[in-house]
Amino acid sequence: MAHQKEATNRVEWKIRVADGSSKDLVPESGPAGRAWLGIQGLIAGLVLKVGRCFKKAWDLAVDDPRKVIHCLKVGTALTVVSLFYYTRPLYEGLGRNAMWGVMTAVVVFENTVGATLSKSLNRACGTLLAGSLAVGVHWIASQSGEKLEPFVNGASVFLLASAATFSRFIPTVRTRFDYGALVFILTFSLISISGYRVEKLLKMAHQRLSTIAIGGFMCILISILVCPIWAGKELHLLITRNMDKLAYSLDEYFNNSGIPVEKSQGYKCVLNSKAAEETMANFARWEPAHGHFKFKHPWRQYLKVGASMRRCAYCIEALNGCINSENQVPESIKQHLSGNCLRLGSVSSSVIRELAITMRTMKKSPRTQNLLKEMKNSVQELHNELGSLPNLLLPPPSIEATLPLEEVIPIATVASLLIEVAARIEGIVSATEELASLAKFKPAVERIAPH
Amino acid sequence: MAHQKEATNRVEWKIRVADGSSKDLVPESGPAGRAWLGIQGLIAGLVLKVGRCFKKAWDLAVDDPRKVIHCLKVGTALTVVSLFYYTRPLYEGLGRNAMWGVMTAVVVFENTVGATLSKSLNRACGTLLAGSLAVGVHWIASQSGEKLEPFVNGASVFLLASAATFSRFIPTVRTRFDYGALVFILTFSLISISGYRVEKLLKMAHQRLSTIAIGGFMCILISILVCPIWAGKELHLLITRNMDKLAYSLDEYFNNSGIPVEKSQGYKCVLNSKAAEETMANFARWEPAHGHFKFKHPWRQYLKVGASMRRCAYCIEALNGCINSENQVPESIKQHLSGNCLRLGSVSSSVIRELAITMRTMKKSPRTQNLLKEMKNSVQELHNELGSLPNLLLPPPSIEATLPLEEVIPIATVASLLIEVAARIEGIVSATEELASLAKFKPAVERIAPH
Repeated sequence: MAHQKEATNRVEWKIRVADGSSKDLVPESGPAGRAWLGIQGLIAGLVLKVGRCFKKAWDLAVDDPRKVIHCLKVGTALTVVSLFYYTRPLYEGLGRNAMWGVMTAVVVFENTVGATLSKSLNRACGTLLAGSLAVGVHWIASQSGEKLEPFVNGASVFLLASAATFSRFIPTVRTRFDYGALVFILTFSLISISGYRVEKLLKMAHQRLSTIAIGGFMCILISILVCPIWAGKELHLLITRNMDKLAYSLDEYFNNSGIPVEKSQGYKCVLNSKAAEETMANFARWEPAHGHFKFKHPWRQYLKVGASMRRCAYCIEALNGCINSENQVPESIKQHLSGNCLRLGSVSSSVIRELAITMRTMKKSPRTQNLLKEMKNSVQELHNELGSLPNLLLPPPSIEATLPLEEVIPIATVASLLIEVAARIEGIVSATEELASLAKFKPAVERIAPH
Repeated sequence: MAHQKEATNRVEWKIRVADGSSKDLVPESGPAGRAWLGIQGLIAGLVLKVGRCFKKAWDLAVDDPRKVIHCLKVGTALTVVSLFYYTRPLYEGLGRNAMWGVMTAVVVFENTVGATLSKSLNRACGTLLAGSLAVGVHWIASQSGEKLEPFVNGASVFLLASAATFSRFIPTVRTRFDYGALVFILTFSLISISGYRVEKLLKMAHQRLSTIAIGGFMCILISILVCPIWAGKELHLLITRNMDKLAYSLDEYFNNSGIPVEKSQGYKCVLNSKAAEETMANFARWEPAHGHFKFKHPWRQYLKVGASMRRCAYCIEALNGCINSENQVPESIKQHLSGNCLRLGSVSSSVIRELAITMRTMKKSPRTQNLLKEMKNSVQELHNELGSLPNLLLPPPSIEATLPLEEVIPIATVASLLIEVAARIEGIVSATEELASLAKFKPAVERIAPH
């Protein structure tokens, strides 16, 4: 914002300078002069805006070069398909249906392999289903006489389009076959209004399907062979990264070990990644085996792990609020509790970090259960510590010296919330362990020698 | 699940009965008989599945009849556009470009007016921009000789497709012009490979644009005139409903007034509505004035209100965890605190309810500030109460009778979290008041007589 303001100030300043000098030098500083200056200002503003836009785009490209690679892949796919049809012999053979190949390539090519596969298969199935239905209806319509024909056609379009549109509201269809339903409606109505005889229609259908198949196949090939981005792998990485971020957040609160603030705010990423996780899990189901992931990898379980992490993040967020409002706790109590809070915070983050290692190596870590036990012990110790606080509050000789309980409450709240965070971390552990057993992770080789 | 299991059991049972009887009556109970029974089972399973699917669809339709209306609207729009082109004279005139009208109608018609407008305008702008660029490039290519022509075409497709694909990663483009960029790529490549001469191309462009305009215009008209669903109004209702749900959740915790559990879990809706809010706010910006909403209604501020509500919901979620784990607090302390907790809980929910009324009536309520003051007083009282707890813990005569602090901690944690919830409610109030002033809500007429 500050940058933008400065820039517009500079423009205004330029305009004023120009305005001042024009009065001295050029006689025509009337409405025409002012309009000219206005246009100059507009152009300068536009140039600045475009410049900022390019800067943003550049940052985006540097931040994730795979995006640039994806763009080049799309460009290549389109050019290949275009040139394929541009060479005359093929072009003559397939006629104007060539455009369907290009259209398929444009619409179907997505960022991840799973999305491309999902769209291609949806397009193929939708086209086939609608095509065969439409040819049937077309035949019925052509048999029913010239007067009735438009009505039969109109009614069939109305009914099937309405039904297919409704199906898009059904959750299963919405998440997996939405594009197929759209293509179904499109193909059916296009064939219905085409007005061809059935024989010609069959020939056209054959041509169109083959071009669509070539276009789709080209996209799938390029998206798998050239620097593929797998939705499944991305989901796996996202969950692993989010675990690291949660661990960082906990560390920062209880260690103050100089981790920069942006990193400690990592739990906010966890709070907001639900939509991304669902999209990726949905696309991952379409993908073949790749890397360490088999075809029927339990992608749905990743959503459960993600949900358990979000539950933990809610609690850290509340903890964040309490820490920020905590200010008047006597230093003695803070120190008394902070030892145990520190220990619980650090062992909690170790548990999450160990889970992240399990995910990263795809091997069951033998240390997780030990760390979990350690965490439970820390929780018990913190409980005991909280119970022994009254002794601190009451210096033995006189009751009058009692510290008001109010001053203990904030730090006790933090401790309680930390205990709740630990309970939710157990949820993450069990979700991750279920994932490990579903995905048949192998046990890791012990990193420390047994003796 | 139980229902499903029962159904498959029934199928199995049927098969077994059929199997038993077939042995007695029909001689051919070999592999053929078993295959036939298998097929019967498959069909029965399929029929059950289809039946369940219809049941789901029916529930969906009963739950929100507007979805059915939307489907009928889509059907109508498509039928009208189809018949429009099916009548011979027009069909001959516009030739095969008629299909672009149908295609536009299928692709552009969305559930809300804003989405339909956004897609239509994106489609129109994308087509126009790509069309004029493509005609220019086409002319250059045709001037560069027969040998160079395919290369100029290929290079232009490659460069522009890559650039447009990249632009789709830029956040602003992604949220508002994603579909326009897609149409741009599509149109540009289609014209580039068309192989027409420029004169014929201009005629075709004119025809195609007019059919697209007619198709898009028809969709916009139907979507605005027949039972319109406005994204803006939906967003307004969503936020208002979520406020009610937050208030319900708070009530349930501290009143136990017999509100069913599903309602009290309403804060979970608030936690998960971020994506829906963003989509709707994005579409609402495209909508003209409707109902009580002017053209430049501050839709972005709704997102801020939504975010402040989510912050509050995080805290309620943590509170939920603490309440569920709270079990061993002595009844005396519970009663001692619960009066104030109850009061704060109830006044907090009143504040949110008042905000919901402000939203529903779109009038600034004069009671909000009073309730806010009341809430702050309650917070102060609860603070004081927490401070006076040691007196309870220490029956005057002997120190030995001290209750362990550990037993007080859970209820004190609940109280602290409730105080944090109250602080976050203040955030909702200020976000909503900013919305009220941005949207120029009028002050409500006082509902209680001044004397």
